[in-house]
Amino acid sequence: MKPEHKAVFQQDVEAVDKYLMSNGYISASDNEEQKVIDAEFYALTAGGKRIRPVLCIEFYKLFGGKGDVTEIAACLELMHTFSLIHDDMPEMDNDDMRRGKPSVHCAYGVDTALLAGDGLAILPFEIISDKALSGDISPETAVKLINCLSKAAGNHGMIMGQRLDLISEGKQVDLKFLKRMSGLKTGCILSASAQFGAILAGADNDGVKKAAEYAENLGLSFQIVDDILDVTGSENELGKPIGSDEKRFKDTYATIMGIDAAYDEAKRYTEAAILAISDLEGSELLIELAYDLLERKH
Amino acid sequence: MKPEHKAVFQQDVEAVDKYLMSNGYISASDNEEQKVIDAEFYALTAGGKRIRPVLCIEFYKLFGGKGDVTEIAACLELMHTFSLIHDDMPEMDNDDMRRGKPSVHCAYGVDTALLAGDGLAILPFEIISDKALSGDISPETAVKLINCLSKAAGNHGMIMGQRLDLISEGKQVDLKFLKRMSGLKTGCILSASAQFGAILAGADNDGVKKAAEYAENLGLSFQIVDDILDVTGSENELGKPIGSDEKRFKDTYATIMGIDAAYDEAKRYTEAAILAISDLEGSELLIELAYDLLERKH
Repeated sequence: MKPEHKAVFQQDVEAVDKYLMSNGYISASDNEEQKVIDAEFYALTAGGKRIRPVLCIEFYKLFGGKGDVTEIAACLELMHTFSLIHDDMPEMDNDDMRRGKPSVHCAYGVDTALLAGDGLAILPFEIISDKALSGDISPETAVKLINCLSKAAGNHGMIMGQRLDLISEGKQVDLKFLKRMSGLKTGCILSASAQFGAILAGADNDGVKKAAEYAENLGLSFQIVDDILDVTGSENELGKPIGSDEKRFKDTYATIMGIDAAYDEAKRYTEAAILAISDLEGSELLIELAYDLLERKH
Repeated sequence: MKPEHKAVFQQDVEAVDKYLMSNGYISASDNEEQKVIDAEFYALTAGGKRIRPVLCIEFYKLFGGKGDVTEIAACLELMHTFSLIHDDMPEMDNDDMRRGKPSVHCAYGVDTALLAGDGLAILPFEIISDKALSGDISPETAVKLINCLSKAAGNHGMIMGQRLDLISEGKQVDLKFLKRMSGLKTGCILSASAQFGAILAGADNDGVKKAAEYAENLGLSFQIVDDILDVTGSENELGKPIGSDEKRFKDTYATIMGIDAAYDEAKRYTEAAILAISDLEGSELLIELAYDLLERKH
């Protein structure tokens, strides 16, 4: 990524991090009663690439938005973090580590992890509707955002992706299944993130569609690179144990196609992502982001 | 309840049951991939008093609403059922039975129960925003409903109530704590249900406040009667094991005050609920409902 774009990207991430550290909804405390909110704060501030909020902010700017959409962008990180907390729990992937720190259920107990995930799944709708009630966004925009996010996260979106993921354990699956699974599990919220930016900027349907197409392809590429890193990455860099897919007898792009062919496949999706927005003026940062994510090592 | 009111109440329940059995969002299937949605359907159609949707429908009518609000009323049952599914799970209350049938995690496994709860927590926001996008309700009304529901269910509402419930296990708590806990755990969604009706009917702030006051007091009375039935009820009538509070060393109104004093306390809250709406024309059904819930045996 060019230095000037890297700087903008970093600014977005810092704005989101700052909001997550200090906002009117979630904060850390020593109060025993607030343990669920503490756990949410812990999960939200444990690091992370903040790709979803960045997509929202950068698509907002791409479509001409001039305001500050950090708060609504952060909602996408809340929804994403909810899914990570529940996904790590013993009944799901049973992962003890996340981003180099103990998973929420290890740090706070399974009961609190369950409730913290629940809280983070609901909070985006509170924040978005608060923004509409305070007049920062119109009710029409709020309804569009809420519809987009609830469909992306819900029964036929991310949750269906999690279900397919459970089915795939210990089973041979094909590439078509993997594509559908990862499109739902990872792609839906990424797509919602890009659409959020377009919707907030008042883009037309064609613009929203381009944003979605970019993010869906980015999501597929992202998932394949994740699969590759699970084989080739180092635990230190990833902040979680490697080889976890193999241990769970999970077929992935990497195990089915081999590392090299999987990388080529990821590259094809990256190029499709870029193609979706290449005719839009000012899309350089998002194009470079797609390449960066393809070449990432963690 | 007077026969004519009983008939209206039954009509409301049947309309909600019918909608839950057949709608565009959740249905039963044999498809392995749809297992999470199957589990949601199972939980939703396992019976239940449907008090929350009825409150929405009847407050809507009380404030002059003339349309059919069954779909939005059902959203309150979705949110309630989400909380039951997660509450029954091993990391929370570990209850094997609910409404006379195996709990969702016993019937479908803990992984599916986790996801089914998640799905039901998100779905109300999809349905309400769909109703706004289709023009059935205004975006302004949708935003108000979503704000009301997300606050009632979220970190400082029902989820905080669940947290207080966890804290109270094996600990001596006082009546003040119990009142706060049950106000959050049960009262918040009941209050949202009544407010939903008022908001949908376009009631003014004073009307919405009266609806909330009725439902909050009804909720406190409801919880105390629940506690009493856990001591005096029969497993057959309740559809779940009795004595579960005692087994978990949970202090309740019944264990702290004794059955008779607890009943008197429930009665006081019932009367406060009634007082909140007694000056509203047409509130007879809701007044009789409050008495019926006080005298219920299951």
